[in-house]
Amino acid sequence: QNSDASNEPHTVKKSVLATYYHRKFEGRRTSSGAKYRAKKLTAAHRTLPFGTMITVTNPDNGKSVKVKVNDRGPFSRKLAIDLSESAAKEIGIYSKGVAKVKLSYTLE
Amino acid sequence: QNSDASNEPHTVKKSVLATYYHRKFEGRRTSSGAKYRAKKLTAAHRTLPFGTMITVTNPDNGKSVKVKVNDRGPFSRKLAIDLSESAAKEIGIYSKGVAKVKLSYTLE
Repeated sequence: QNSDASNEPHTVKKSVLATYYHRKFEGRRTSSGAKYRAKKLTAAHRTLPFGTMITVTNPDNGKSVKVKVNDRGPFSRKLAIDLSESAAKEIGIYSKGVAKVKLSYTLE
Repeated sequence: QNSDASNEPHTVKKSVLATYYHRKFEGRRTSSGAKYRAKKLTAAHRTLPFGTMITVTNPDNGKSVKVKVNDRGPFSRKLAIDLSESAAKEIGIYSKGVAKVKLSYTLE
């Protein structure tokens, strides 16, 4: 995603769609290990390193807030699992893109 | 999600939609810290603990494969960031559900 070959710090700006955490996540563990706290200014992002500070601006009112990335997300509502290439080939869904599968696992 | 109040191990079975990793992820770091290897039998899941073994079955041909959860995903294609409740309130998008925002951050 970073086509800048230099090692200079550079600023990225983009317009995206944002959602926010439901109340029920209060106190749950984030991907970084820290607990989610509704009162803190944090965010989930797919790929940015934990600790990255993002300035998020609402173009409708010009308000902005600085948040720290401490979680991975947002997740797809439609899809539940991403398989490795080998796993997808083994059950014959590689090249299908999306496939209905059955999951079975044991929770302690 | 777990309504079983006992501490007994129990098996979960569900039908879901699966996708698989694009080739370009080869060698990239997963959320667990391990590198993604196309040849290994691994998977990304939203919430299951890393190390959980999932049996994935293709109902069309009955083939199944056992994969180990070592990553978080699948991610939404439409959404790029989940904000904490406080952050969403601060810029006035709380109660909107989904909102267009501008992101700005610096990469080293």
